[in-house]
Amino acid sequence: MKAARYYGKEDVRIEQIPEPTVRPGQIKIAPSFVGLCGTDLHEYLGGPNFCPTSQHPVTSETIPVTLGHEFSGVVKDIGPGVTGFKIGQACAVQPTIFCGHCPACEGGAENVCHHGGFIGLSGGGGGLSEAVCVSATHVFPLPDGLELETGALVEPLSVAWHAVSAAPEVTHDSIVLVIGGGPIGLAIILCLKAKGVRTIILSEIAASRQNFARQFGATQVVNLINDDVTKIVIDLSNGRGADAAFDCAGAPASIKSACSAVKARGTVINVAIWEKEIPFNPNWVTGKESIFKSVLGYQKEDFEAVIENLRTGAIKPNGMITAKIKFENVVQDGIKRLISDRDNHVKILVDVNAK
Amino acid sequence: MKAARYYGKEDVRIEQIPEPTVRPGQIKIAPSFVGLCGTDLHEYLGGPNFCPTSQHPVTSETIPVTLGHEFSGVVKDIGPGVTGFKIGQACAVQPTIFCGHCPACEGGAENVCHHGGFIGLSGGGGGLSEAVCVSATHVFPLPDGLELETGALVEPLSVAWHAVSAAPEVTHDSIVLVIGGGPIGLAIILCLKAKGVRTIILSEIAASRQNFARQFGATQVVNLINDDVTKIVIDLSNGRGADAAFDCAGAPASIKSACSAVKARGTVINVAIWEKEIPFNPNWVTGKESIFKSVLGYQKEDFEAVIENLRTGAIKPNGMITAKIKFENVVQDGIKRLISDRDNHVKILVDVNAK
Ligand SMILES: [Zn+2]
Ligand SMILES: [Zn+2]
Ligand SMILES: [Zn+2]
Ligand SMILES: [Zn+2]
Repeated sequence: MKAARYYGKEDVRIEQIPEPTVRPGQIKIAPSFVGLCGTDLHEYLGGPNFCPTSQHPVTSETIPVTLGHEFSGVVKDIGPGVTGFKIGQACAVQPTIFCGHCPACEGGAENVCHHGGFIGLSGGGGGLSEAVCVSATHVFPLPDGLELETGALVEPLSVAWHAVSAAPEVTHDSIVLVIGGGPIGLAIILCLKAKGVRTIILSEIAASRQNFARQFGATQVVNLINDDVTKIVIDLSNGRGADAAFDCAGAPASIKSACSAVKARGTVINVAIWEKEIPFNPNWVTGKESIFKSVLGYQKEDFEAVIENLRTGAIKPNGMITAKIKFENVVQDGIKRLISDRDNHVKILVDVNAK
Repeated sequence: MKAARYYGKEDVRIEQIPEPTVRPGQIKIAPSFVGLCGTDLHEYLGGPNFCPTSQHPVTSETIPVTLGHEFSGVVKDIGPGVTGFKIGQACAVQPTIFCGHCPACEGGAENVCHHGGFIGLSGGGGGLSEAVCVSATHVFPLPDGLELETGALVEPLSVAWHAVSAAPEVTHDSIVLVIGGGPIGLAIILCLKAKGVRTIILSEIAASRQNFARQFGATQVVNLINDDVTKIVIDLSNGRGADAAFDCAGAPASIKSACSAVKARGTVINVAIWEKEIPFNPNWVTGKESIFKSVLGYQKEDFEAVIENLRTGAIKPNGMITAKIKFENVVQDGIKRLISDRDNHVKILVDVNAK
């Protein structure tokens, strides 16, 4: 079968590899749509970071590995012992790889498994192929009326839903600050809207991303460079500060803004992955006993919640797909386009079966 | 009456000032014992930091202000409208100053009042005097059998209790790391013991403080300089990591150790006040979704809990008092001794009435 395989920095090859066979408890998925994201770019431009250069403790694989961790597809084969699925059924896949026996896994926190990873990055196949075998526990049937295209958005939306769930105190009346209008920041706006949050302030520099944010439901759009974000948030909240602030930018200025703009006992949620140490003063949160949380990935519950909110129409993901490309053009029209024209794209989907 | 007044850096004067009069809702306390702490030192050596150089928004005072924020005393006068107190009754005082109408106060978080402060630092009198008038809501009668000396420890123990309460998931079976064996770190050990925590690891460099920690109930004492604290904690917890880590040291190495030693979804609690920005990488907590909390001061509930735990004997504060000095010697035998011989003292108490 064809697969897009990561060999190393700036080296992704489309090649023929053997089709995998389902093992007990697994389902073989024929991927339909696969989203590309910053993690893929990061591997392409500066990797291997995530992709294993020595044997991955769970998948036992090293590069080359198949890419594609944000994908939908149809059931192609059902492994021994699996019930409740039908051949041809449309599904989204939670690509979490976990060991099942480390203290984090034993504590039910598979997303922070000490040996964790992702299908499509850590071995175990990936969405950018004609078939991938995954644990049936991580396959989520799409309800009637939910397109396979939308199914490929379930993974990034689950990242956002997981982040939003880290601030359970956020209600309709909350004032929420989102810093950074990239795909995750925008997905967080969609999830906040789905939760009925009425005041969503986005801080973003790029005009194109500001426009996406308005379209997705941000009620105020500010620019960290020209505007005093903290003052705007404080004024909008009658001096109180934001109930929660999401840092999706991951820059020294964004973490400081998030900490200053949040209210007493509010929550700052870091959704960014950082490149290096940055200047931080715990006093930014001490004076008001704000909480600094960092979130990573998602859990089964996030996938379930996102699919349910897509079904009811509470999450409106339509504007997220900014391009659909062919499998053979994944590098040129996908990865390289995201590099050169990042701000004008939210999600580029690879249509695996497009001729 | 006599009072120890802070005029500025290295300028504390004992002088005669008018005795204050109780207003409605207030109680006049004749202080008995007053603890000195790092905050007092900080003002003396490098202040004014906390002490107001322009009119304090709540007390309307500027320096000079009376010192002494950790104190016990007896009721000397009872203001109009106050019930339930008797002249001569032994009490501890919560020295919180708050405005009562800012968003934090309205949200019940007086300890992070936007205009907050402390009796004994921000104006409104202080324990280092013959009389101080405080709100009756912030006066806590000491149960029979609780000495006035011990009453002066209620304030620093409440700081520790408040910090420990920020990790409500800590139980008997938890493994807790405390970094820094100064007075607050040691008080946290006492509070953890009172909560029945069986494994308390203290990281401290100074031998004298290590000895205090053992005496107070630390089960393991390690030294950040010689020992790999993270490895020790991970080993002691079967690879899991500490359930909670308290940073009472406030140094680049301590925050990093606290973040590395804590388990997946564990809590890092910052109890230190920091001088400046330090290098921090949010990834230290992201990879395991640990929570970074910062705590400040205490609330009424903390004072109540500490007094109750002192009454039952669950908190054993005896070793905390390392010296008792006379009022007139507060600078020489108190502040200056803490500067020159810090590691050999936990709490120096000023005996206000000693002749
Ligand atoms: Zn992704
Ligand atoms: Zn695991
Ligand atoms: Zn103090
Ligand atoms: Zn207030």
